[in-house]
Amino acid sequence: MSSSIELLKEKGRRLRIHSLRSTTAAGSGHPTSCLSAADLMSVLFFHEMRYDPRHPDNPENDRFILSKGHAAPLLYAAYAEAGIIEEERLITLRQFDSDLEGHPTPRLPWVEVATGSLGQGLSAALGTALAARLNQLAYDTYALLGDGECAEGSVWEAAALASYYGVSNLYAIVDVNGLGQSQQTMQRFDVKTLAQRFRAFGWYATTVDGHNYGKIVEAFAKCRGEAGSKPRAIVARTLKGKGVSFLENKEGWHGKPVPGADLEQALAELSRPYVADGFRPKPRPRPRLEERPVDVDINVSRKIGESVATREAYGDALAKLAEKNPRIVALDGDTKNSTFSEKLLKSRPERFFEMFIAEQNMVGVAAGMAARGLIPFVSTFAAFLTRAFDQIRMAGVSRANIKFCGSHAGVSIGEDGPSQMGLEDLAMFRPIPGSVVFYPCDGVSAERLVAEAAKTLAICYIRTTRPKTPVLYANEEQFPVGGAKVLRRSEQDRATVIGAGITVHEALKAAEALAAEGIRVRVVDAYSVKPIDAATILECAGQTAGRLVVVEDHYAEGGLGDAVLNAVGNRARVVKLAVREIPRSGPPEALLHAYGISSKHIVAAVQGLL
Amino acid sequence: MSSSIELLKEKGRRLRIHSLRSTTAAGSGHPTSCLSAADLMSVLFFHEMRYDPRHPDNPENDRFILSKGHAAPLLYAAYAEAGIIEEERLITLRQFDSDLEGHPTPRLPWVEVATGSLGQGLSAALGTALAARLNQLAYDTYALLGDGECAEGSVWEAAALASYYGVSNLYAIVDVNGLGQSQQTMQRFDVKTLAQRFRAFGWYATTVDGHNYGKIVEAFAKCRGEAGSKPRAIVARTLKGKGVSFLENKEGWHGKPVPGADLEQALAELSRPYVADGFRPKPRPRPRLEERPVDVDINVSRKIGESVATREAYGDALAKLAEKNPRIVALDGDTKNSTFSEKLLKSRPERFFEMFIAEQNMVGVAAGMAARGLIPFVSTFAAFLTRAFDQIRMAGVSRANIKFCGSHAGVSIGEDGPSQMGLEDLAMFRPIPGSVVFYPCDGVSAERLVAEAAKTLAICYIRTTRPKTPVLYANEEQFPVGGAKVLRRSEQDRATVIGAGITVHEALKAAEALAAEGIRVRVVDAYSVKPIDAATILECAGQTAGRLVVVEDHYAEGGLGDAVLNAVGNRARVVKLAVREIPRSGPPEALLHAYGISSKHIVAAVQGLL
Repeated sequence: MSSSIELLKEKGRRLRIHSLRSTTAAGSGHPTSCLSAADLMSVLFFHEMRYDPRHPDNPENDRFILSKGHAAPLLYAAYAEAGIIEEERLITLRQFDSDLEGHPTPRLPWVEVATGSLGQGLSAALGTALAARLNQLAYDTYALLGDGECAEGSVWEAAALASYYGVSNLYAIVDVNGLGQSQQTMQRFDVKTLAQRFRAFGWYATTVDGHNYGKIVEAFAKCRGEAGSKPRAIVARTLKGKGVSFLENKEGWHGKPVPGADLEQALAELSRPYVADGFRPKPRPRPRLEERPVDVDINVSRKIGESVATREAYGDALAKLAEKNPRIVALDGDTKNSTFSEKLLKSRPERFFEMFIAEQNMVGVAAGMAARGLIPFVSTFAAFLTRAFDQIRMAGVSRANIKFCGSHAGVSIGEDGPSQMGLEDLAMFRPIPGSVVFYPCDGVSAERLVAEAAKTLAICYIRTTRPKTPVLYANEEQFPVGGAKVLRRSEQDRATVIGAGITVHEALKAAEALAAEGIRVRVVDAYSVKPIDAATILECAGQTAGRLVVVEDHYAEGGLGDAVLNAVGNRARVVKLAVREIPRSGPPEALLHAYGISSKHIVAAVQGLL
Repeated sequence: MSSSIELLKEKGRRLRIHSLRSTTAAGSGHPTSCLSAADLMSVLFFHEMRYDPRHPDNPENDRFILSKGHAAPLLYAAYAEAGIIEEERLITLRQFDSDLEGHPTPRLPWVEVATGSLGQGLSAALGTALAARLNQLAYDTYALLGDGECAEGSVWEAAALASYYGVSNLYAIVDVNGLGQSQQTMQRFDVKTLAQRFRAFGWYATTVDGHNYGKIVEAFAKCRGEAGSKPRAIVARTLKGKGVSFLENKEGWHGKPVPGADLEQALAELSRPYVADGFRPKPRPRPRLEERPVDVDINVSRKIGESVATREAYGDALAKLAEKNPRIVALDGDTKNSTFSEKLLKSRPERFFEMFIAEQNMVGVAAGMAARGLIPFVSTFAAFLTRAFDQIRMAGVSRANIKFCGSHAGVSIGEDGPSQMGLEDLAMFRPIPGSVVFYPCDGVSAERLVAEAAKTLAICYIRTTRPKTPVLYANEEQFPVGGAKVLRRSEQDRATVIGAGITVHEALKAAEALAAEGIRVRVVDAYSVKPIDAATILECAGQTAGRLVVVEDHYAEGGLGDAVLNAVGNRARVVKLAVREIPRSGPPEALLHAYGISSKHIVAAVQGLL
């Protein structure tokens, strides 16, 4: 056993050397944040975790998530020492053509989710841990956190849920070095208080000297022996910059590489090897998960004119898709009876995850689940998805295959008022590179678009409406990504009205009213807000003298109107109807009118163009 | 004292009656959420809190924040019983022309901040409590939370900071009724665990039967006697729907009014009065805070060509403005040495608030401070402001006078990589109704725009850049809201290039390169992204054959390009250069080029237009 400790110490020494060399070469990075965690990392990678370094995709591998993502050089160093990557690559840290980026991204096969925005790693780790249970796999998930990031509320969302669900295959290791970026942390070296907090949140927690290998090994053993069904926290007291005398516990070194002139001095303090490297990782047998393509051939059976809310159609489709696709799971933030994700809870309870009122964690968990091959459908009110914008942003960096559903879009929700209205959600999802944004107007398109999202490998966002609306489409109608539907057309169309969701119905009413006055207009359902069907829109513009009215139940910036503007450029005159002030409570119809997006306003806009 | 208890019981009875009547009349609302909290509310409004109902603006009033905002009818009922509003108004709940909205907004003078998005009220309460200490006022702040919302991480961010700063003038009262929206909460009636969590986070916490008046009164007295310098949590066990037998502790009643046909039966159970109403609120003497206009006449002294990062100029301006304006405070999320808000820490430490790595709480606290007349400047990396989008959204609903600064905008930050790059922040701030968005390109405009933000009564966002850039403007140049600067012009301009921030410099380089080829272009610094200077842009377009190139260090959706597109409509051809994929780590220059926004790309775009 003592030779094993010697080997671990030797690994720790080499991790420190790699971290210092690579950041000095890069001229940037966070070496002191790596040095504090090197011993913990050594025990994790070379003693505790079970994985096959030759096979990143072995579904039985233990998972590691570097929540303190700025310690990326340390992670890459561990990969090199484990034989996962070649040591020569380490010096390419942060270079433009290197996959060893400043903060880890899943360009590297071993990285589950992108980190670097603090406080998100524990959620992702919870996601991979829950995926293990669902997929009946025996792996554990380990998340390495910093102490500063424990100020992020998302950490405590994850903690609360992990203990509630008895997620015992989850480990949080906290590197308490007492120094944040710009000053000392709130708790400094008070590992006892942090452990108490984890215990208060239902975890098994133990404290340890983060530089004593024997004690660290013991801490993991204690967890295994004593934690039972609780998730496990190891709260380690460390020194930032540990191993180099002029860096240890010194303020002002966060995010600073050791200058080239001082590197030798630093390395000299780390020059004495412990033992020759005899490390062999402990692989597990290698079952392979079937990854079948997603079957989206669901049976949609509604009647034209039938009244149904798109939010309810979402629930119907979700349940049907889950029947055919074992990888589909649903997560909801205590709104399942409003978003109708509860329909999946009823049919397949083992695949429904109640996430309670904690949207940040919900999205982070989904990212972790997606990394393990599940297809998570995440739902809450559209307005409350803004609570998790940073997690959504990072899911974009991770290219995580998550489907989002935001219900209660727009002023059309009525009396609950502005706190509950999603009015900026299209603006939030559209900038995410590669994202797909759907906004169905009726029950049939809603079901078909949920299915389309399930099979599209991208972050997809589906926006649903609270009030019931009439079914417009036949059951077998298809709704491809990047398409649009022309609902009314004639040879005499004098303008084109483009809507999505609830405004399609307002547009149709307006078209009727105008027809009664002898004015014909084309009506387009732009159900695919991103990518938008530029071809169809330009064709309509060309045939209607370039007169376009776009109407959306969303603020004026960043939504459907801007999508259309970008599609047509200067080839059409676009009048944009949208919500342009903070709305208030009131009946839905009154609000559509008060905020300028009702059929009457569409009529007026068309008349203004003529 | 016993007659006082009888009076409080009578008030509680009446609060319940008002809540039931108003929600039944509205046909929507959350009466059962009101009923569980009615007794707590009675003790708060009619025994514990000190305030003058005739003067909402008395700066000495105790403050109340309804974090569980869906209990709005209960709040309005308390206002009516306190004589703050007329009882007859209660029946107008949720009507279009009533200020008694579905969730509270500051249309009502007694409402500090809009609530309704759960988990945000404790932050706002912490903000008002901190404002009291800064302004040397003796009021206490009380926040009423639900148990479900304690799953929100933002609650624990606020809790951690409140105890760290010893904010003893802050009370959190938690209404633990064990039922969320769609199911039972995680902890159900386990008030002990929740109290333990508050204690682990450094609070004084006591549990109480939330329907026993004597015990509730006692709980507040205990807090005053025992809590010392700690913030105070009263965790109350209650029953949702308390007071009406067919509602008490029954699932399925969240957000449902009692139907008209059943209202009489409900009211019958609440019909026996306790005592005649002899309530007289306890006013305090009435000092008035001086509210001087903001003095923005700062001395800017830079040299043209001098190299300075706009993020550093932000810090300079902030410190200068704080000297002249005692209401200005700064909040930062452990990035003060990167955002340079630390310059205010150095000059006026009592007005700097380190908020640690907890952006949600930081924004919520700012909203509470703004409600108390301070002018908060909130800073962190632009990317991390997305962590607080829901809080920013709600600050918009509150019309809170907060100034935001997001540093490290765009790919130009370089090697740290995408997790640290702000690429969607313009898309986030532009939709907020009434918001103002500034993106200065040099040190002089940065300082002047920070000053402009200080005096503009609106949510303002200032985007700053990590690398140093040359000073372009003279010290006395003015930068009004909604303006732009034409930096290069001639009679032979064949196209207009519009940039902001770092791309202004790329545009100038491109103009030089094109001039060497005999092609003259106009260059515009659109420092005011919102409102955008449509007049200037249209004039330039008109004079350059409608050829516009817009270039931004931001994703393609929702930023400067879209602002310009909206300004020009079909009156110009707009080529938009922006970042269109997830970027990677690399040197800043290489990234500007790799992502299509460097001077070379601008040159190519202009040539493409010609």
